[in-house]
Amino acid sequence: MKTATFVILTILGRGAAAQTPGDGPRFTSDGRLEKPENYREWIWLSSGLGMSYGPISEGMSNQDPPFDNVFVNPAAYRHFLRTGTWPDKTIFVLEVRSSVGKGSINQGGHFQGELVAVEAEVKDESRPGKWVFFGFNSGSSPAKPIPPAATCYSCHAQHGAVDNTFVQFYPTLLGVAKAKGTLKTPLGIAGTSRN
Amino acid sequence: MKTATFVILTILGRGAAAQTPGDGPRFTSDGRLEKPENYREWIWLSSGLGMSYGPISEGMSNQDPPFDNVFVNPAAYRHFLRTGTWPDKTIFVLEVRSSVGKGSINQGGHFQGELVAVEAEVKDESRPGKWVFFGFNSGSSPAKPIPPAATCYSCHAQHGAVDNTFVQFYPTLLGVAKAKGTLKTPLGIAGTSRN
Repeated sequence: MKTATFVILTILGRGAAAQTPGDGPRFTSDGRLEKPENYREWIWLSSGLGMSYGPISEGMSNQDPPFDNVFVNPAAYRHFLRTGTWPDKTIFVLEVRSSVGKGSINQGGHFQGELVAVEAEVKDESRPGKWVFFGFNSGSSPAKPIPPAATCYSCHAQHGAVDNTFVQFYPTLLGVAKAKGTLKTPLGIAGTSRN
Repeated sequence: MKTATFVILTILGRGAAAQTPGDGPRFTSDGRLEKPENYREWIWLSSGLGMSYGPISEGMSNQDPPFDNVFVNPAAYRHFLRTGTWPDKTIFVLEVRSSVGKGSINQGGHFQGELVAVEAEVKDESRPGKWVFFGFNSGSSPAKPIPPAATCYSCHAQHGAVDNTFVQFYPTLLGVAKAKGTLKTPLGIAGTSRN
């Protein structure tokens, strides 16, 4: 418990010094991340259906699994187009929404419904893992960092195609990463010519 | 056939005069719509899975139906936030992508794959129907207008929640339309509190 407290305080202390100009992350003086209220006006990277698992999607049915929508701040996006890499202070937002299977003229597909959760991932090159996760799931902003023992840290580090990020799921960026030679590992994505 | 030719020529003639400054639609001198190459940097409104039907989705399996991604030009989006209505020269882009069910760490969900089709819908207040559709499905740009007898015209006119557009499927804009009182009809969207 002491260790966990120390880690969080360390993160807070570092976050406090990480104010960013432009469209990057904004922190409070005690290192909590302000929820970017305009993230839906950032660059949208992709959406999936039923890709979320763990606490966010608990209680949702298999018939109507949640959508996940991923956005990134425009400055980091432009940097990625040029280099195939994410700059310091990149901020991703993951928005999870319910899916609706019946409504209006829809004939068996799924469209997006209510907001379920908002999370963020921020690149901080001053930290050993270089990326920090934040959850606004209770609707509260600013948010404290998610403790480093959470599975999001290990899963992104192990499976992210570029750096800590799931570029394998962002079709227009996957080609950029290939062209720039920044893919970490073979991806094993079957069923498309995007391998 | 003569009637259809006349209608198309009329559209072309009108389109030629509809050059728009800023991020709106760009037409050739003979009224064909230039494909907006940067539409993925516009405002993304929502994505659905399996919502497309008709020619676009023919040949796709029920197990892996296509995603549909909808974008609108930023100036029209800002106008909608203020008024709940779409201004003249609004341009929507519908991007259809394949869905991929197996790949990377995905455990049963669907993520987005190859580009299948790109279509556009442009508001032109000088025309009786006020909206014109264009298809870049063969990859060719600029595109001629889709003939007015196509079902997209009647379906959007009849079922669009705001003007000719499916705001019932764009969760953040639906609240704006409600607040501004611009919804055309009761929507009958079951299963969410968005009714």
